[in-house]
Amino acid sequence: MTTTGRSVRAERRAETRERILVAAERLFAEQGISTVSNRQVSEAAGQGNNFAVGYHFGDKTGLVRAIMRRHAEPTERLRERYLAENGDVDDLRGWVTCLVRPMTEHLAALGTPTWYARFTAQAQTSPALRSFMVEEALTQPALRRISAGLDRCRPAAPEEVRRERADMIRHLIVHTCAERERALAEGGPTRRASWEATATGLIDALVGLWQAPVTHRRSGGDT
Amino acid sequence: MTTTGRSVRAERRAETRERILVAAERLFAEQGISTVSNRQVSEAAGQGNNFAVGYHFGDKTGLVRAIMRRHAEPTERLRERYLAENGDVDDLRGWVTCLVRPMTEHLAALGTPTWYARFTAQAQTSPALRSFMVEEALTQPALRRISAGLDRCRPAAPEEVRRERADMIRHLIVHTCAERERALAEGGPTRRASWEATATGLIDALVGLWQAPVTHRRSGGDT
Repeated sequence: MTTTGRSVRAERRAETRERILVAAERLFAEQGISTVSNRQVSEAAGQGNNFAVGYHFGDKTGLVRAIMRRHAEPTERLRERYLAENGDVDDLRGWVTCLVRPMTEHLAALGTPTWYARFTAQAQTSPALRSFMVEEALTQPALRRISAGLDRCRPAAPEEVRRERADMIRHLIVHTCAERERALAEGGPTRRASWEATATGLIDALVGLWQAPVTHRRSGGDT
Repeated sequence: MTTTGRSVRAERRAETRERILVAAERLFAEQGISTVSNRQVSEAAGQGNNFAVGYHFGDKTGLVRAIMRRHAEPTERLRERYLAENGDVDDLRGWVTCLVRPMTEHLAALGTPTWYARFTAQAQTSPALRSFMVEEALTQPALRRISAGLDRCRPAAPEEVRRERADMIRHLIVHTCAERERALAEGGPTRRASWEATATGLIDALVGLWQAPVTHRRSGGDT
């Protein structure tokens, strides 16, 4: 095969991968990850070959990981930019801003409609995919710095409470964004006019949540 | 038909309804409401007749409403009890307690496994079902009193911010409970040892969220 032939083939391969990723993200976002088959994804991506997902991504987990990584990279770049810009700020609001705005800016940059926030909400309902997301997060230095910065703002809170609140922050960011994304996609009303304003509302609320006093274990031991 | 014949028939009818409700709640919780067909529900409920859902509940919306009401009634009774017990308390923590504990106590009373929290999380992803849930909430006097009580704790906050935070409270309660319910059902680890302790963690966080200062609209108008 000539060099040109090989590069045309590589280009087609990349195009097919891209088409599968886009179709899968949408189907997973709208219908849930466990309920959509690889065959449905291949069909929605216009692939005559029902084994296209297997050929390009191995299995469904490989496909889900590829969708996550596709968004994780630009989001991590935005986090790095926020950290650089806020390098001299080491307060709670600064860390929460560095956590929230990269997500909403990435969504804004994708244009309307998007499926990424709803896809993430669906992925979080699978314990296996959620642990994979936690693992992936550990490979992102900016996200780790932000997470450590948040922890430093509550040094006296028990570790278990900080982990519990971190879960709550994740729920709030993901489901607030997913609800707004769905409303935008369906032409319904939204609480705020822009992703930027949505981030402001989230940051205000999360600062309060992270600072909230902790009720300590009663001696009776209910907590 | 004799009176006995009629009552046997009514009893069987009630049993079939109950079986359909239980099967549907589980399927909807695990797979999503839009992806599960009435036929799948009928089969899972052991009904030879694929029209059983239609016969007993009209359509899928009727079925979803019946599942919601089945839980809304005992939860509203618990709210009334909390309001009566906390009748002289008119502070934020009191209102948040009256909002959170009836949900976690209802889940605890159902025993493990439950599907109700995950069913609610799925129902919230449908704008149509969400508006129905809001309508239903208006018919529950205790829930309305709690909601008005919360609003009175932030009289100066703009209406739109209170509605946005109310959405956040809903997300936090539903998804924290759904994640715990899933972990219990699958034998995985949970953040807290009991539903009671889960409620304590939620109440602490929600009090902070509801009190958090509001960043006001910049004159540039980004919010």
